Amino acid sequence: MTFPTLDDLRAACRDLPAGDEAAAAAALARQAVLTKPPGSLGRLEDLAVWLARWQGRPIPKLDRVSIVVFAGNHGVAARGVSAFPIDVTAQMVANYAAGGAGINRLAETAGATLRVVPLELDRPTADFTKAPAMETADFLAAVSAGYEAVSPDDDLFAVGEMGIGNTTAAAALCAALLGGGATRWVGRGTGVDEHGLARKRDAVEAGLVRHAKLVGDEDRVAAVEGVGEQQDA
Amino acid sequence: MTFPTLDDLRAACRDLPAGDEAAAAAALARQAVLTKPPGSLGRLEDLAVWLARWQGRPIPKLDRVSIVVFAGNHGVAARGVSAFPIDVTAQMVANYAAGGAGINRLAETAGATLRVVPLELDRPTADFTKAPAMETADFLAAVSAGYEAVSPDDDLFAVGEMGIGNTTAAAALCAALLGGGATRWVGRGTGVDEHGLARKRDAVEAGLVRHAKLVGDEDRVAAVEGVGEQQDA
Repeated sequence: MTFPTLDDLRAACRDLPAGDEAAAAAALARQAVLTKPPGSLGRLEDLAVWLARWQGRPIPKLDRVSIVVFAGNHGVAARGVSAFPIDVTAQMVANYAAGGAGINRLAETAGATLRVVPLELDRPTADFTKAPAMETADFLAAVSAGYEAVSPDDDLFAVGEMGIGNTTAAAALCAALLGGGATRWVGRGTGVDEHGLARKRDAVEAGLVRHAKLVGDEDRVAAVEGVGEQQDA
Repeated sequence: MTFPTLDDLRAACRDLPAGDEAAAAAALARQAVLTKPPGSLGRLEDLAVWLARWQGRPIPKLDRVSIVVFAGNHGVAARGVSAFPIDVTAQMVANYAAGGAGINRLAETAGATLRVVPLELDRPTADFTKAPAMETADFLAAVSAGYEAVSPDDDLFAVGEMGIGNTTAAAALCAALLGGGATRWVGRGTGVDEHGLARKRDAVEAGLVRHAKLVGDEDRVAAVEGVGEQQDA
């Protein structure tokens, strides 16, 4: 499914599938009859119930696990918010393809399938301090790419994202959706020095001012479009 | 190696092998050149350094992982400190052998070898509220069995213990070695009700009084002999 208009996307968000309460209850009840002290498997027990709820079966499976990393480039990177130039995004995508990144080994160890989806790396989003990060059509294309990446056959779908400048866009998005201001949300990311950190805070603050009418807006879709990232969409 | 006398055991404890600092330093340095943000693998990074230190190689391996569960029976169980009779210990050992316990599935998932070592289940320790839990010879036999269970070929050795009444003996041991009294250390274990919990606290308190001269003793060996368990030894 793709989303031709924002209203299609909003409608889909209002119609999300519910979890299977009966499967979750059965998974919980089953734990009481297994030969182990109650609660002794700790968080594993919660995870089994969670998987049962969303897989819709009392005994969940993890035979097909997909990890998908979305990669995108950010216009805001031009403001010196990262220790690396945006060319590194494409280099990292090549590195994933060559099996050289940490996530490759984690996926291998977990028996998961790893896939990387580059989102028009040669066409970064706009600098969100100056303009909306994405035009509506680009935003909907990014959301649709994410939707298409999920297979109904997966037992578990784990999502990641990568792209030079990504923590700046993520901080702006969190501040826009959840409040708290730039200082609360901006961290060093990967190896940013004091000056870079200050530029990063300034960029997020400028983004919040630039898109002030979207901040705290009930319509989350608009906020992502304003300061978000292709891979966050 | 076995320990014919307590002094042999004490000498071995004073001569424990040190970790390999050079291997640990090399593992830590290597993390800085891997393609991942610093610290992004969280606790996995600490664990890799820890394994490097104790395996004595900069790139640790987990090809051979052994899990050994020691099972023993406790005289103190006669005081009603558990919701189950001590026959259940042997039933659980049979269950491990049949592959029916939680640890079987965890071992299988982790690619680990599981072994269960029953320690004379038909001959429980003495009730530690009335006498030393073990005679010296039995204590040394239990320690030696533990020592013999470790293979130098293992990349990782994970140890567990099982035995009806085990949390009572463990609480007594912790209170004897670390202080804090019975109330601080005694919990419900597996499904113990209010009355059982009170009996459990009373038993630990009585054990601490009975072995008062060992409590806080610098000679940890004596305390384990006094209130400990075969499988803790």
